[in-house]
Amino acid sequence: MIRFYNGLVLEPSGVTENEVWVDGSAISYVGPAREDMPLFDCIVNLRGDLLMPGFKNAHTHSGMTFLRSAADDLPLHQWLEKQVFPAEAKLTAESTAAFVKVAFLEYLTSGVTACFDMYYHTDEFARIARDWGFRAVLCGSFTAGNDWEEMYDYYQHYNHDFGPLVSAQLGFHAEYTTNREKLEYLSKVCHELKAPVWCHNAETASEVDGCIERHGVTPTKLFDSLGLYDYGGGGFHCIYMTDEDLDIFARRGLTAVLNACSNGKLASGFFRLKEAMEKGVRLAVGTDGPASNNALDMFREMYLINIMAKLREENAAAGDPALILNAAVSGGARAMGLDDCDAIAQGKQADMVRIDMHRPNMRPVNNVVKNLVYSGNPSNVRMTMVAGKVLYENGEFFVGEDPEDIYRAAEKYTREILG
Amino acid sequence: MIRFYNGLVLEPSGVTENEVWVDGSAISYVGPAREDMPLFDCIVNLRGDLLMPGFKNAHTHSGMTFLRSAADDLPLHQWLEKQVFPAEAKLTAESTAAFVKVAFLEYLTSGVTACFDMYYHTDEFARIARDWGFRAVLCGSFTAGNDWEEMYDYYQHYNHDFGPLVSAQLGFHAEYTTNREKLEYLSKVCHELKAPVWCHNAETASEVDGCIERHGVTPTKLFDSLGLYDYGGGGFHCIYMTDEDLDIFARRGLTAVLNACSNGKLASGFFRLKEAMEKGVRLAVGTDGPASNNALDMFREMYLINIMAKLREENAAAGDPALILNAAVSGGARAMGLDDCDAIAQGKQADMVRIDMHRPNMRPVNNVVKNLVYSGNPSNVRMTMVAGKVLYENGEFFVGEDPEDIYRAAEKYTREILG
Repeated sequence: MIRFYNGLVLEPSGVTENEVWVDGSAISYVGPAREDMPLFDCIVNLRGDLLMPGFKNAHTHSGMTFLRSAADDLPLHQWLEKQVFPAEAKLTAESTAAFVKVAFLEYLTSGVTACFDMYYHTDEFARIARDWGFRAVLCGSFTAGNDWEEMYDYYQHYNHDFGPLVSAQLGFHAEYTTNREKLEYLSKVCHELKAPVWCHNAETASEVDGCIERHGVTPTKLFDSLGLYDYGGGGFHCIYMTDEDLDIFARRGLTAVLNACSNGKLASGFFRLKEAMEKGVRLAVGTDGPASNNALDMFREMYLINIMAKLREENAAAGDPALILNAAVSGGARAMGLDDCDAIAQGKQADMVRIDMHRPNMRPVNNVVKNLVYSGNPSNVRMTMVAGKVLYENGEFFVGEDPEDIYRAAEKYTREILG
Repeated sequence: MIRFYNGLVLEPSGVTENEVWVDGSAISYVGPAREDMPLFDCIVNLRGDLLMPGFKNAHTHSGMTFLRSAADDLPLHQWLEKQVFPAEAKLTAESTAAFVKVAFLEYLTSGVTACFDMYYHTDEFARIARDWGFRAVLCGSFTAGNDWEEMYDYYQHYNHDFGPLVSAQLGFHAEYTTNREKLEYLSKVCHELKAPVWCHNAETASEVDGCIERHGVTPTKLFDSLGLYDYGGGGFHCIYMTDEDLDIFARRGLTAVLNACSNGKLASGFFRLKEAMEKGVRLAVGTDGPASNNALDMFREMYLINIMAKLREENAAAGDPALILNAAVSGGARAMGLDDCDAIAQGKQADMVRIDMHRPNMRPVNNVVKNLVYSGNPSNVRMTMVAGKVLYENGEFFVGEDPEDIYRAAEKYTREILG
């Protein structure tokens, strides 16, 4: 058992000065110091630092680290067709594994305790998560080129074969890379499995225009009309949503996963945060892949979501740091089906981050939440714990592999692919 | 003498694998390893890390750290009048000193080796810079309420009385807080001193509209017509610049200091980067004060300048990471009169930063410059050196004071002012 004391704790009710005890993978107690203390294996004096639930990176393509700083500053379609797709065609299981590991290391340095991932070579991905002790949810990225009957196997395989840290959700890439027949089939699958459905949705204007041309309605209306949202789910990006789309998301309890850094770097546009907030749309936060971001840094995501809201509305009062922090933590957990990882509370999984409050960017402490959102950065992440296990602390990784070996492998495979 | 070897060096010509030797406050050699090596006091194996010139924070109000996370998410005028001004009225020399020290610590953690500061209690500010060994340039922030004859004293005092690390430039707050008579007087001063002139310029549309109402022209045209730019200088923010304003800046070699994070958080708007680049306007980068940012993080500034350019132009190819990195380093040095601090080259001041390339956000190394701009953050700053002296290394400060004492004082004074 581990005891954390003498710090701040970000609880659902706000910031407290409670103790937090961890027993195995779960939080066994949150409250004031008690006389009847058990015997602890480890006692951590937080010395004023903040314990918060880990960030949930609710949309990413971890294996794309090899394209970091290799495919920048290009218009979206050139970027995809000239840089991304030809490079991805050369990926192997080995090289993807090395690239995924670089991403996982970066998640740990920025306080991410779980990711919702869409990419290739998913068995390698799931194995790394299992072996390292990192929490990962796979999202299907099926396109018209795939056999969608494999969805059943995909869903069962990743929900059962890699232990408690790995799970899967139904998903496909996007409307424009599939067809009506496939989507109708998916409707059958999600009803049989009673499972939520996820995909890229309304990332660009041309994607939405194309869908209206093909189907007469927006992607959200199309998916809704086909029953894909009958068991929940949601979309990644969600930039070009109509009022009606946002209403559907609100009514059905769907989650819009925001990817501000990607939408900024690819000039995709601004999420309609004000309207989504007014309608009560559920929100989560993701980094998208490192090729379009290029960092995997949830601090920067939270920051930019608020800044882009202010710029879009031309109003310094726009945005809501507390709401966006909540989206980045418990909103993501709910979206990813990780209901036991959403908060620091008794019985929840011990997926937690220690925020160093002794760095100057956190001082003075006028408002912990605003400090996190407006001036926090990965240098404030002192420890990242997943399921009660410390995977990162004081700049060191505890994942059973030497980061230098991972960097060397990633460098080698990157040169093989990109030259 | 100190020898740095086995790393990368960001030189004016690009990234090299040279050695860098430091003798006293200056760089004594940059080049390949040599047989005729002197006796070094210290030999640093960079192990693949990057040595780069320190960031120059070319516009800030360091003493405003006490307002971090205390005055957010308000429209600009409410923010200034209801939050900032009443709080600032309570500042003392002692409290300002504590707040400045928090800012200086943060500069060191984010690789800033010099700042261009506009604020109150400037003697305390200059003393801290001198005593810590941090490089600081004071910028006058005169308003109509001040006696502008004091400008001579200000200029001489801060350029001579605090040693080689402290200097000063002529400056006033902004057009809307002064009047024509004062500006005509300043014209006389800058001609006598043959000195550049600085101020906030075109930060908001209403500021420019007001100037046109009062004077019939934009701030830039007004200042230019009065001869204020006859010896150079430039403006902070520069958002609402007309083509003609940008032409004046280009023709006279004036510097536009970009403050993207502040302009985003206060919803002030977008700098016209494309037009400024086309016209060849000189650029520098600043954080503005921590009340309007809220971090003092040049990585985030460089990042957001590029992202805002892409969003404004609706073009993923907009922006220029290499140009903006150069602005954040040598552009700032030139603007601040620090011509000997602009680069890693023989004879230049040893104002340098060691970037940790062994963090996952820097891997793989497809492009060092893009890594810095698009995925770098303060956790990559492993060492910050000013004038040959290490002030920050591996998370520790070497400034002659305990950061905890500084945090405690800043916390105490903040509570006294804000309650």
